[in-house]
Amino acid sequence: MDTIDPQIPEETAGEPAAGRRTRGVAGAAGRRAARSGGGPGLSQPFIMRKLGVYEVLDEEGLQLIERNADKILEEIGIEFRDDAEALRLWKDAGADVRGERVHFPVGLCRELLKTAPEVFTQHARNPARSVQIGGKATVFAPVYGPPFVRDLEGVRRYATIEDFRNFVKLTYMAPSLHHSGGTVCEPVDVPVNKRHLDMVYSHMKYSDKPFMGSVTAPERAEDTIEMCKILFGAEFVDQNCVTLNLINANSPMVFDETMLGALKVYARNNQACVVSPFILAGAMSPVTVAGTLTQILAEVLAGASFTQLIRPGAPVLFGTFAASISMQSGAPTFGTPEPSLVSYGAAQLARRLKIPFRTGGSLCGSKVPDAQAAHESAATLNMTLLAGTNFALHSAGWLEGGLVSSYEKFMIDVDQLGMQQRFAEGVDLSETGQALDAIAEVGPGSHYLGCAHTQANFQTAFYRSSLADNNSYEQWLAEGEKRIEDRARVLCQSWLDSYQGPELDPAIDEALLAYIASRKDSMPDAFT
Amino acid sequence: MDTIDPQIPEETAGEPAAGRRTRGVAGAAGRRAARSGGGPGLSQPFIMRKLGVYEVLDEEGLQLIERNADKILEEIGIEFRDDAEALRLWKDAGADVRGERVHFPVGLCRELLKTAPEVFTQHARNPARSVQIGGKATVFAPVYGPPFVRDLEGVRRYATIEDFRNFVKLTYMAPSLHHSGGTVCEPVDVPVNKRHLDMVYSHMKYSDKPFMGSVTAPERAEDTIEMCKILFGAEFVDQNCVTLNLINANSPMVFDETMLGALKVYARNNQACVVSPFILAGAMSPVTVAGTLTQILAEVLAGASFTQLIRPGAPVLFGTFAASISMQSGAPTFGTPEPSLVSYGAAQLARRLKIPFRTGGSLCGSKVPDAQAAHESAATLNMTLLAGTNFALHSAGWLEGGLVSSYEKFMIDVDQLGMQQRFAEGVDLSETGQALDAIAEVGPGSHYLGCAHTQANFQTAFYRSSLADNNSYEQWLAEGEKRIEDRARVLCQSWLDSYQGPELDPAIDEALLAYIASRKDSMPDAFT
Repeated sequence: MDTIDPQIPEETAGEPAAGRRTRGVAGAAGRRAARSGGGPGLSQPFIMRKLGVYEVLDEEGLQLIERNADKILEEIGIEFRDDAEALRLWKDAGADVRGERVHFPVGLCRELLKTAPEVFTQHARNPARSVQIGGKATVFAPVYGPPFVRDLEGVRRYATIEDFRNFVKLTYMAPSLHHSGGTVCEPVDVPVNKRHLDMVYSHMKYSDKPFMGSVTAPERAEDTIEMCKILFGAEFVDQNCVTLNLINANSPMVFDETMLGALKVYARNNQACVVSPFILAGAMSPVTVAGTLTQILAEVLAGASFTQLIRPGAPVLFGTFAASISMQSGAPTFGTPEPSLVSYGAAQLARRLKIPFRTGGSLCGSKVPDAQAAHESAATLNMTLLAGTNFALHSAGWLEGGLVSSYEKFMIDVDQLGMQQRFAEGVDLSETGQALDAIAEVGPGSHYLGCAHTQANFQTAFYRSSLADNNSYEQWLAEGEKRIEDRARVLCQSWLDSYQGPELDPAIDEALLAYIASRKDSMPDAFT
Repeated sequence: MDTIDPQIPEETAGEPAAGRRTRGVAGAAGRRAARSGGGPGLSQPFIMRKLGVYEVLDEEGLQLIERNADKILEEIGIEFRDDAEALRLWKDAGADVRGERVHFPVGLCRELLKTAPEVFTQHARNPARSVQIGGKATVFAPVYGPPFVRDLEGVRRYATIEDFRNFVKLTYMAPSLHHSGGTVCEPVDVPVNKRHLDMVYSHMKYSDKPFMGSVTAPERAEDTIEMCKILFGAEFVDQNCVTLNLINANSPMVFDETMLGALKVYARNNQACVVSPFILAGAMSPVTVAGTLTQILAEVLAGASFTQLIRPGAPVLFGTFAASISMQSGAPTFGTPEPSLVSYGAAQLARRLKIPFRTGGSLCGSKVPDAQAAHESAATLNMTLLAGTNFALHSAGWLEGGLVSSYEKFMIDVDQLGMQQRFAEGVDLSETGQALDAIAEVGPGSHYLGCAHTQANFQTAFYRSSLADNNSYEQWLAEGEKRIEDRARVLCQSWLDSYQGPELDPAIDEALLAYIASRKDSMPDAFT
């Protein structure tokens, strides 16, 4: 268990990351780099919240849900499908295994979870970008999973590996995204059995932020580990977390072979698993908040504690993906009150388990980055920070229920993430913050625009949005009545045009490319 | 000091209010109506928060700001301009008055404020719509003040009295707006010295929700009181709050003749004043959160305690309008982190003063209801509820920094207010909420769509947005790729088309119209 002391040089807080990289540090290979301190001129690599959390359940409510979850674990049980090893491990650990259904004696999962770290570091190849997972830290990562993009021409189409690289580059440049994420979009132009190699390589090559591994098959998880060993060194990987990996439960109450296979690879290699019930309430869980929370807790207890059966001490997160379905159409809905209540409650349950928590992001169901998209995203994102979320996937670019990675929405979200980061710094109560000298200088009936305190502090006083238009109506008219997505498109293109990647040791780069080539040669292309 | 027990019949929670009015109750005159209980079939008239508040300052920080505010009050002082009566009252109360500058001995304002109620009722002519101001109650009111509208043809133009009536009607029909507000737009087609009569009448005639009075001149405040006496009866008005009135401080540290004149009329008549520093931080206050909070507290202490010099026991609110200015262009900005921190902190200061608190709403700087408008509004609105705000002006329809009342944005905001109201209900921990029977019935690997618990509860399970599109992409395409503002426009027109007003006793209506006619006849038209 270790923590990081974030560095926040004010003067660079508003600049894209590309302008701030320190070539010397970024160019060093992972092994060495990951041990040294942060470099100069780097913005805060993650949020350390100075404010408290918001909670929606009292002690009595929390205990009720915990008791009910224990009842589910013991009486109903959780299925571990098509995985004889998992069943054997659970039997050996003292669970009552009937077929593929595992029934857990009260307290077994909690006891196992005691070996999981409350806080840990996920290392980036640039150590200044390593992130703390857990405690008061909040880490924002981009959207995960969409097969489509809405591109800079406004066309909705299948995503490609070029889109994938673009989102990695944009994430690298965005100061408010602390993590490169994983499947920022699904590059469907690359064979399905090979694309994980290109995806992992893109995160390693085009960014120096921490990233996620492949979970779609155990051998793809193994490939991720092998590539991490090339980048960071085998011994470093075995002793440190260098990938975070999304392990979804098949709610209700099932873990399948694929996810268990990936989980086992990562846990065995001391890498972090985010055990996440993927909940569309009303379909995968009851239509109530408390019922959904109970099921989520049971599923996480089973899945997260399983990582400790594989390797005690392996980092694991309490994950929650919460949405509802429309009871009229069956469509998923986002940013509504009930999933917010679920996530706030789940954060509380995670803190009591003393493992880091993942939820939220900038979720929405809208097809375009309009006010619906923004309201739904804002409702999710405000909750994400106030709940005390440690790792927030889908924080930028998510559109259309996660079917689409949107360039425009990505830029709009990144701006909002910056506001969350500023908010989390709380209230400055220093003498400068108190500003009594300014109030005395200005006095009744005057204004503060020119006073000494304003002159000295206005540069860093207020968060400066990169996209909001606050000009006069007349000026806005003269500039063509642009909407925020129009401005986002222009800014996005300018970021992509000005992208300069972090250096990567040519020997490591070569070794990675050789590994990928050899792995690709070993398999025929598969597209389904 | 009294409170109201809100009634929430589930079956009507999603319907516009017009379908739910009870003619008998609504038709009764104010005097009688204001004393009886709520009628059947009425939705909750305001929010009673079952969840806690979010706070950004600790005890030490609060005391620091309070000490600094006391220092401002004593050493710098607050100006009460062009009002000899105010200066005399302050002198008699023990303040040190030098010219128009009033210096307050430490503790004087707090001592005076002890006679102000912590919680009170603002009565509506339909008692089922009376609202609690203070405590755990949150009351949403529409936008206040814009001279322009963005109409249903998408045209931005000066507002008219017809627009005014439309917004009163829409507010009447919106279940999540608990209050009719005040200047929902500025009807510039009516002479400036007469329009307050038409505005107050519109609130009385086209709605039966509580409303705000005119504050633009003392005689217009007197007209408001006279019209209230016709509607509610003179004795009832003297003993109860029937109007809420917006008294802005001229920050920094000035109260002017106009606002003091209106304040005195309302306080003398036992009506509520919302003493609100109108702050664009960086111009009217220091560029820091703590400095802004300090000045706000000083201004509110001076202005709010002044109401108690006029009439001890008169209801008064701690108001805060917080925005920042762009230090580059000087333009106001909304929905950014710093004003949120200011408002959260101000709510805490208000609770310590034991008077109700007003802030927030759905503020934005955008010219159109796009994602900028939504993000800025959401940031403001989420804070509004979580801060524990008691009265939230500008909750629906605010666009372009308050220059425009937007029909489309109004409908989008109303939908979001409904979500806030649902969120504030918190987590149902009843047996139905726990849903253990559902989890047992469904079991691992199945789904909840058809289970008995879902069938019994799905109707009320999730907040149902009136505007979000969650259909498939293909269906959305087929329906013409509509954005949320397109759907809002259609819904708005259908509300206006189906509006049915609450009945108003014809004798009262006639008396109101006669009063208005006589007052209008007594003055020449003025347009500036």
